[in-house]
Amino acid sequence: MTSEVLEGRAEGAADEKDYVQSLARGLQVLRAFSQYKPRMTLSEVAQHTGLTRAAARRFLLTLVREGFAETDGKRFALRPKVLELGFAYLSSLPMWEVAQPVMRDVVNALQESCSLSVLDGEDIVYVAREPTARVMTIGLSIGSRLPAYCSSMGRVLLSGLPPAELAAFYDRVRIEKRTPRTVPTMVALKDEVETARRQGWALVDQELELGLRSIAVPIRNRRGEVLAALNVSTHEGRTPLEAMRNRFLPVLLDAAQRISAALPQ
Amino acid sequence: MTSEVLEGRAEGAADEKDYVQSLARGLQVLRAFSQYKPRMTLSEVAQHTGLTRAAARRFLLTLVREGFAETDGKRFALRPKVLELGFAYLSSLPMWEVAQPVMRDVVNALQESCSLSVLDGEDIVYVAREPTARVMTIGLSIGSRLPAYCSSMGRVLLSGLPPAELAAFYDRVRIEKRTPRTVPTMVALKDEVETARRQGWALVDQELELGLRSIAVPIRNRRGEVLAALNVSTHEGRTPLEAMRNRFLPVLLDAAQRISAALPQ
Repeated sequence: MTSEVLEGRAEGAADEKDYVQSLARGLQVLRAFSQYKPRMTLSEVAQHTGLTRAAARRFLLTLVREGFAETDGKRFALRPKVLELGFAYLSSLPMWEVAQPVMRDVVNALQESCSLSVLDGEDIVYVAREPTARVMTIGLSIGSRLPAYCSSMGRVLLSGLPPAELAAFYDRVRIEKRTPRTVPTMVALKDEVETARRQGWALVDQELELGLRSIAVPIRNRRGEVLAALNVSTHEGRTPLEAMRNRFLPVLLDAAQRISAALPQ
Repeated sequence: MTSEVLEGRAEGAADEKDYVQSLARGLQVLRAFSQYKPRMTLSEVAQHTGLTRAAARRFLLTLVREGFAETDGKRFALRPKVLELGFAYLSSLPMWEVAQPVMRDVVNALQESCSLSVLDGEDIVYVAREPTARVMTIGLSIGSRLPAYCSSMGRVLLSGLPPAELAAFYDRVRIEKRTPRTVPTMVALKDEVETARRQGWALVDQELELGLRSIAVPIRNRRGEVLAALNVSTHEGRTPLEAMRNRFLPVLLDAAQRISAALPQ
């Protein structure tokens, strides 16, 4: 960090001056609401966040006052205004809006779900998803996180990292066997990432979850840097591996090309 | 509010005990980032939010520490983790995920953008949008807000409000002439909303913006309550009003029916 940011303070000092606990805790309260708990009482929020009732109450009432939440006196729920928080991020992604119609074409062509994600630490984070209507979708949506090391989009994103960042990832990542097919060692993982880099795509067969197969390609900017990954996912009962290479991959590569071409200069 | 929430305090007391200014200001900092300003220096954030540099710095460093932002030492940017904030809200909407494949079919059928929105005060807030690839889209995305009184989705949503809430809306709303076609008086607006309620759809021709025409239908739950509105928008140069009624409306009504049928019980 430069001196403009630190203003003379030693890097990494966990000083109260640099940390606003109320903000951190207030954000925790926001995140407590979910698909499974869209409406909660004061007690439930306190329980869910580990805060005292008094603290949870102050944060909730602040959120209500600022228009981010509402209450009927007993339960609290989020209001649409919270979308302004997350969407500042999405709208800052150059490929986000141009990708949507292209992803729609992919789903129309292949009748399988198509997703777009970026790398965030050890995870991929979904930034767009076009689910297929044909089958039950697996509960993924914008903001969902999956481990990068055993997902197709993860391997593509990792393959696009500069060497120093990739080395740092390998230092941090913890490989655990999620299925009998999950890559078993660091050496095997590095090999997969190198393969993805060399061939320009990654196919992951049931390493994250039994039955789940997906194939991903990178979305590059004009400098060749990998901005995001685009994938199609399917079930092993529906699509043999060969079909993923022969049928899905050309459609994906074409889609990635179209998205790259449509990126703002 | 019940006593559980107020704990004996007089309703509406703007007391420091009920308000956490740091949270409110921290959220302001988050919202300062946008499509137009995805990366900002400390000074830019301070300027944009009206906070002092010292305050902006504390909030930014807290956001960095909590994983919601990152910095290269000079500029700050949001990280994908902010999606967890807004996304709690979207995933709490019962129709959100089931609507997507249906909206895709609408766009495929009509070759025009299809959007889903909810009412928030005097605005509609976009919760889903499938843009057409065919023409330039008008910069709308999830979280975007438009006035309810002069938009097709707004009129449909208003037509679904219980009488007391609708009356409160009419008390609050400020009608301004955005185009020569904008509804000119409260009486005219009430008439439009009543028409939408009676016929079950609303067509708005260039009242929000010259050239912009859109037609909307309600999405209802099993109790008949209006949860959201679904629309298709086009340009007057592309689609005559008659085509919007004869071609767009049946597709929309069918889509709304499909979404309602797919809602979780």
